[in-house]
Amino acid sequence: MTETLERPASDMRTENGAADSPARRVAAWLSDFESALTAGDAEAAAVMFDADSYWRDLVAFTWNIKTVEGPDGVRDMLAATLEHVAPHGFVATEEPTGTPDLTEAWIEFQTQVGRGRGHLRLKGDKAWTLLTTLDELKGYEESKSQRRPMGAQHGADKNRKTWLEKREQEARELGHTTQPYVVIIGGGQGGIALGARLRQLDVPTIIVERNERPGDSWRKRYKSLCLHDPVWYDHLPYIDFPPNWPVFSPKDKIGDWLEMYTKVMELTYWSSTEAKSAKYDEDAGEWIVVVERDGADITLRPKQLVLATGMSGKPNIPSIPGMSGFMGDQHHSSQHPGPDAYAGQKAVVIGSNNSAHDICAALWEAGADVTMVQRSSTHIVRSDSLMDLGLGDLYSERAVASGVTTNKADMIFASLPYRILHEFQIPVYNAIRERDADFYKRLEAAGFQLDYGEDDSGLFMKYLRRGSGYYIDVGASELVANGDIKLASGSVEKLTEHSVVLSDGTELPADLVVYATGYGSMNGWAADLISQEVADKVGKVWGLGSDTTKDPGPWEGEQRNMWKPTQQEALWFHGGNLHQSRHYSLYLALQLKARQVGIPTPVYGLQEVHHLS
Amino acid sequence: MTETLERPASDMRTENGAADSPARRVAAWLSDFESALTAGDAEAAAVMFDADSYWRDLVAFTWNIKTVEGPDGVRDMLAATLEHVAPHGFVATEEPTGTPDLTEAWIEFQTQVGRGRGHLRLKGDKAWTLLTTLDELKGYEESKSQRRPMGAQHGADKNRKTWLEKREQEARELGHTTQPYVVIIGGGQGGIALGARLRQLDVPTIIVERNERPGDSWRKRYKSLCLHDPVWYDHLPYIDFPPNWPVFSPKDKIGDWLEMYTKVMELTYWSSTEAKSAKYDEDAGEWIVVVERDGADITLRPKQLVLATGMSGKPNIPSIPGMSGFMGDQHHSSQHPGPDAYAGQKAVVIGSNNSAHDICAALWEAGADVTMVQRSSTHIVRSDSLMDLGLGDLYSERAVASGVTTNKADMIFASLPYRILHEFQIPVYNAIRERDADFYKRLEAAGFQLDYGEDDSGLFMKYLRRGSGYYIDVGASELVANGDIKLASGSVEKLTEHSVVLSDGTELPADLVVYATGYGSMNGWAADLISQEVADKVGKVWGLGSDTTKDPGPWEGEQRNMWKPTQQEALWFHGGNLHQSRHYSLYLALQLKARQVGIPTPVYGLQEVHHLS
Repeated sequence: MTETLERPASDMRTENGAADSPARRVAAWLSDFESALTAGDAEAAAVMFDADSYWRDLVAFTWNIKTVEGPDGVRDMLAATLEHVAPHGFVATEEPTGTPDLTEAWIEFQTQVGRGRGHLRLKGDKAWTLLTTLDELKGYEESKSQRRPMGAQHGADKNRKTWLEKREQEARELGHTTQPYVVIIGGGQGGIALGARLRQLDVPTIIVERNERPGDSWRKRYKSLCLHDPVWYDHLPYIDFPPNWPVFSPKDKIGDWLEMYTKVMELTYWSSTEAKSAKYDEDAGEWIVVVERDGADITLRPKQLVLATGMSGKPNIPSIPGMSGFMGDQHHSSQHPGPDAYAGQKAVVIGSNNSAHDICAALWEAGADVTMVQRSSTHIVRSDSLMDLGLGDLYSERAVASGVTTNKADMIFASLPYRILHEFQIPVYNAIRERDADFYKRLEAAGFQLDYGEDDSGLFMKYLRRGSGYYIDVGASELVANGDIKLASGSVEKLTEHSVVLSDGTELPADLVVYATGYGSMNGWAADLISQEVADKVGKVWGLGSDTTKDPGPWEGEQRNMWKPTQQEALWFHGGNLHQSRHYSLYLALQLKARQVGIPTPVYGLQEVHHLS
Repeated sequence: MTETLERPASDMRTENGAADSPARRVAAWLSDFESALTAGDAEAAAVMFDADSYWRDLVAFTWNIKTVEGPDGVRDMLAATLEHVAPHGFVATEEPTGTPDLTEAWIEFQTQVGRGRGHLRLKGDKAWTLLTTLDELKGYEESKSQRRPMGAQHGADKNRKTWLEKREQEARELGHTTQPYVVIIGGGQGGIALGARLRQLDVPTIIVERNERPGDSWRKRYKSLCLHDPVWYDHLPYIDFPPNWPVFSPKDKIGDWLEMYTKVMELTYWSSTEAKSAKYDEDAGEWIVVVERDGADITLRPKQLVLATGMSGKPNIPSIPGMSGFMGDQHHSSQHPGPDAYAGQKAVVIGSNNSAHDICAALWEAGADVTMVQRSSTHIVRSDSLMDLGLGDLYSERAVASGVTTNKADMIFASLPYRILHEFQIPVYNAIRERDADFYKRLEAAGFQLDYGEDDSGLFMKYLRRGSGYYIDVGASELVANGDIKLASGSVEKLTEHSVVLSDGTELPADLVVYATGYGSMNGWAADLISQEVADKVGKVWGLGSDTTKDPGPWEGEQRNMWKPTQQEALWFHGGNLHQSRHYSLYLALQLKARQVGIPTPVYGLQEVHHLS
């Protein structure tokens, strides 16, 4: 989420002719690397990596999302993949930069079946980090820019079908007389972004969504909700938000954008459709997916099934004694209808992360008497500080002005290995703590328990590790600090008819209880839709294996089960925030396309399952 | 539509220090020019222009769209405007290019009330062409990029209104309890593009459209219709078509785009609404516009009224003896429902321009027996050739790759004075005639009467002068050449019950007659909606006064009545193709904004009326 590697200010072009320039160092390394690869010599390639080094591959070499470490990791990966990948054509695509201590380069390369892009960092003459990503499949390039479709077929043709007639025919036939290759369950931003990629790759796809309209997954949430990530971080593939788009999209506005995007990208989007069951037919090599649409069951038989039902997984509602006897309203935060009905009432919100804060603030604004129950310490970052110090170098108007396009920002971010990402994050959050010291002091004085992550690495590491444990402050913290939102701490012992009782005996009168208690692992969706057996076979989704709270080890190296093959044949998980939905949808789409057209996709290093949920 | 001025290939930066470089020539001219302007010395500024020179101003100096010619024209314009415009701050914004014979520069400048951009061409040390355009009004800059709205209001606020609540409130109130400043009649691409600009400038606006949905003006046309202009030429303001958009948009696809654009740009768009009458209340300084919506009349009182009802104006249906007795179907091309009902029938299409060709080809494809009646010679250009030779330098993937953004292309095109534009066009069409010589020979052999414009300046000059007289060939010409579409020539004498009879006695049996006979001047809309008196006061709309067919002199210098003040206070015409709707909507929007906020807008050189229609 930030790029703190220093870049030299001087124009490297003037050094071009020098005996030792960034360009020469990179050219020499790439040339030696390619010689080793072409010779099939995994050992020669491996020793070109520093003892402390990371090669992150997104699909290009491994048909997986995989980071290998050090010469041993590189050797093992190359020994398994070199022969069929046949990598070649490594070149720098713009002038490399840096000093002999740290040289950086943007690169391109090819494999037997595709074209790739990547990024290289050298320490001295050894690779420190290498990112390789598959960008397109040869023969299956997207029809864009120079390859745009013509739209009009010039000439005369007695069997001409218009664009509209073809669209209507597809709507009539796909899922009925013809089968989609992919079914995506869940039509939020994840499903939509992936659907757009697959449409461009000509992979017949149906997106199944419970709600009436694309965007409803945002529209139906509490009314004050705005995106917590800024616009530069949130673009969908193909169509950027316009320059007048607000920094933080209001939920209904992002809903409208998703709806129009779905339409103009020509996605087959089955709204008001409930996915009821899915079962993998091993013999046929396809899924049997039953959905209910317009009151009738339809059975789909896709070859691939993607669960894009939300990175947060299924709502986690704690089981508390007395819940069933509580006389007021009670619901999970995801079901919270907004504050309007609760003016003048007593609300208790259990939890202290993003949703808890947003809901408390909205209830207070509507005139409710609000108490937040903090059960464990929480990481708070002020939105301004996060924008400035955490995101500004990659995703901001400033970044755009300095040539860091969204795509480039995504690649820079992808190039930082998860293993060492926290090292880049810790100084950012130290700076934030210094900048906002007064703010944090006032929060603590009000009794709020703060943390900055177990290793002080802050918000984004918490997001990657556990997807929870923080609040991006857009105003609620001030209400906590000044006591407008009352604060209680500790665990909840029970509910009575009209109150919440904490373990220290505190009794909080309540007309409303909101359980802002988070979500379970995404494989819970698989349990519901497919079977517990398949959910267990796949195991926990999300997290890096960092051995911190809610992200148990061992170290996985990449997000568990996301955007890559799982232990269940033909089952995939897609999602995350808008940045991840945008960037990783490309790699998932390419994996699916390759399978559709029969390109061999031997997976290197298929993840093992260490945790069930 | 093309840029044939030669640009030097060498990198001018190396000449920067030379005594005479493009940069120095431009800097010297701009410095002297600014000194003259600052001193209020119109004479000193005028003599800096070549005897043969053109200053085109889009709103910045003249609050008009105006080209003045030679030192006399410059002197007159500056004498009238200098004092209140107070121009200053002229600088080149990128490295000027060229030779002493022809130097070119992109420029920026300021006036008392705004910031402008422009383009300068020097011959020696005198100006040959100068373009000045108003880009934004000081204090009323659009909220975009660095000035994006935040979206979320951070902090807590008991009176907070969400984005949705504000949108719903506006929908309830605007046009009912509050009045729009502008009413735009016509919600096609023109009205939509202008509506988007006005929304960004915070000018309350209602767009009134007869059809049910934005985009229906395209959807409801004949089913094979695709845009004849390519995608790079067609972008709307703020949101570009994505890179996968087809070169030539099918009509229903562009319809969907306009619909989504209207929604995400948050336009107040009254669909299914009929404008019934409009009258200017001189005393109140506002219009009384009566519209019918949901079965009830609503009276709107905007200060400004824009007619964006289509650049083609009202359908022209000739009055032919026997029409009322004809037993088959007959309709104007704009009402043609498509070919499907006419398979196996005899169709006669009167006319030989774009619509006539498209409709003939679609009828032939559907299995009708088709005859085209050519009444006068027609200019034909093959789409490929037009794309390559006519548009490629400015609007193409190649142009984009070489740094010619849409905005830059618009500015280059705007910088070529209409007076001499044909001189740049003639060589293009000569090249096209050479390239497609065989094609034209075969068309003539089939009896088709060709022309290339009266001065051989081709399609775009015909468009600017009369908006008709051509067909961009996407396939129908081949059917004409090979006789699949039968050709008849001459004027129509009468219709019988079952045939069309030409003046030479030829009788064409007909089940269907399509009048592809074009459109009248746009002030016909004003006659219908307001009064014949106001239509006559305003006079003919469109055309340059080139003294060619359908564009009678005297020379006007700019398009009659388009995007600029007319002889009727507070009445404006907007429209044209997508390029013009995009580019000129900015200048019309700025003129309207200035009036809304009370910035003085003294109009220099208000056009005179030379023709009634």
